[in-house]
Amino acid sequence: MPSFKITIAYDGGPFVGWQRQASGTSVQGLIEEALRELDDRDVSVAGAGRTDAGVHAMAQVASFALIRDVAADVILRSLNAKLPREIRILSAEEVPASFHARFHAVAKAYRYRLWNADVLNPFERAYAWHVFGPLDLSAMAEAAQFVEGRHDFAAFQATGGKRRTERVILRSTVTASSGGLITYDVTGEGFLRHMVRSIVGTLIEVGRGRRRPEWIRDVIASRDRAQAGRTAPAHGLFLVRVHYSDVQFGRHVP
Amino acid sequence: MPSFKITIAYDGGPFVGWQRQASGTSVQGLIEEALRELDDRDVSVAGAGRTDAGVHAMAQVASFALIRDVAADVILRSLNAKLPREIRILSAEEVPASFHARFHAVAKAYRYRLWNADVLNPFERAYAWHVFGPLDLSAMAEAAQFVEGRHDFAAFQATGGKRRTERVILRSTVTASSGGLITYDVTGEGFLRHMVRSIVGTLIEVGRGRRRPEWIRDVIASRDRAQAGRTAPAHGLFLVRVHYSDVQFGRHVP
Repeated sequence: MPSFKITIAYDGGPFVGWQRQASGTSVQGLIEEALRELDDRDVSVAGAGRTDAGVHAMAQVASFALIRDVAADVILRSLNAKLPREIRILSAEEVPASFHARFHAVAKAYRYRLWNADVLNPFERAYAWHVFGPLDLSAMAEAAQFVEGRHDFAAFQATGGKRRTERVILRSTVTASSGGLITYDVTGEGFLRHMVRSIVGTLIEVGRGRRRPEWIRDVIASRDRAQAGRTAPAHGLFLVRVHYSDVQFGRHVP
Repeated sequence: MPSFKITIAYDGGPFVGWQRQASGTSVQGLIEEALRELDDRDVSVAGAGRTDAGVHAMAQVASFALIRDVAADVILRSLNAKLPREIRILSAEEVPASFHARFHAVAKAYRYRLWNADVLNPFERAYAWHVFGPLDLSAMAEAAQFVEGRHDFAAFQATGGKRRTERVILRSTVTASSGGLITYDVTGEGFLRHMVRSIVGTLIEVGRGRRRPEWIRDVIASRDRAQAGRTAPAHGLFLVRVHYSDVQFGRHVP
């Protein structure tokens, strides 16, 4: 009964999110359907991060076990043959049965893309949030730094979320690129639902000059969702990478 | 009666091409419709390059005259308000009545994007041609150079094309980027229909090792479409820039 780790890129636009839902097409659901054909039974796939409806992934990671003895490259090719073009399996490898894509992830990296110019590049319409008007980038970069560290991020959680809201953020940076593109990169050991998008909405308040960079500390301290900025739209968000420790694969353990 | 020059970016995916057709939605047709509302009469828009169905533009240029006295920034905003998100007017400026986007263009730059990896990045599915298998990049780069200069390009023209098939190509280069992206950049004083896509199909023959780089000279000399490679698909092609001489705008003429 071989176990596998797959890395998946998807355009989140047409899907209800990673996770299977009562209705609508999910990425997890499509992969499970394709695996069912391969293994002739229901296969349960665990994803590292539950991306919401419309959120994209450059490299989501998932794990599952099969009963049939199938080679990893056969999985790669047969999944890509069955899945729609919006979802691509980038790699597949056999892993010890103990590996779990979510439980063993040590960190995740997200990127949020903003387009800050009068006119939205048509090729960015599905992959960046169009924000009009001047933004103070250095103020946003300064504010972003206050997110780093171990904090209680209840203020950045969707309503009805988890009770335990402390998380560790390893990196939180704002970078301007050419032509109006601004990227917010955040890496953390874990995230709450809507957390990245709420941080982005809060950074925009600072960028517009309505708040000073230090204000983000007050928002975090308040633990109150109403203090933070609006939740930025889903289509600007990308799950960029899921980090694992090699030890979990048993590679460096004799 | 003010005249205008507009720069337009569009995702060619949903359109029958730049030019108005008997049926289907064209970029030119949509811009003319939007201008008719603004000027209360039929407006004829001249585009610099007639991109085919599915071909994209980062910066197409078009010119037209209005009867009403409308400011350039009003044109920019009202066209963008009326046009679908796949088409964006990037800039609008008033120009002398003598300016014509096609007749006065001194050169055009096109880019063709190839994705050369086993798995196609889902975010590239509408913007790059997926080419499997190894490609010899230095051979392709060498072959591309033979395109530069003044040549009779009849071998790279769509059937039923123009009689005069001599064109001047100023630049023709192949560049590899990270993650499987290969770009072919070509700048010329003028192009024949399907010319860039036929050159790309021919470069692929060289990249696959089926032909030597010098073979492209023989293809050009043959003036025979059947000698060249297949026409690469439309969705990898971008009109990148249209060049004008400032003199045509009368700016440097007292």
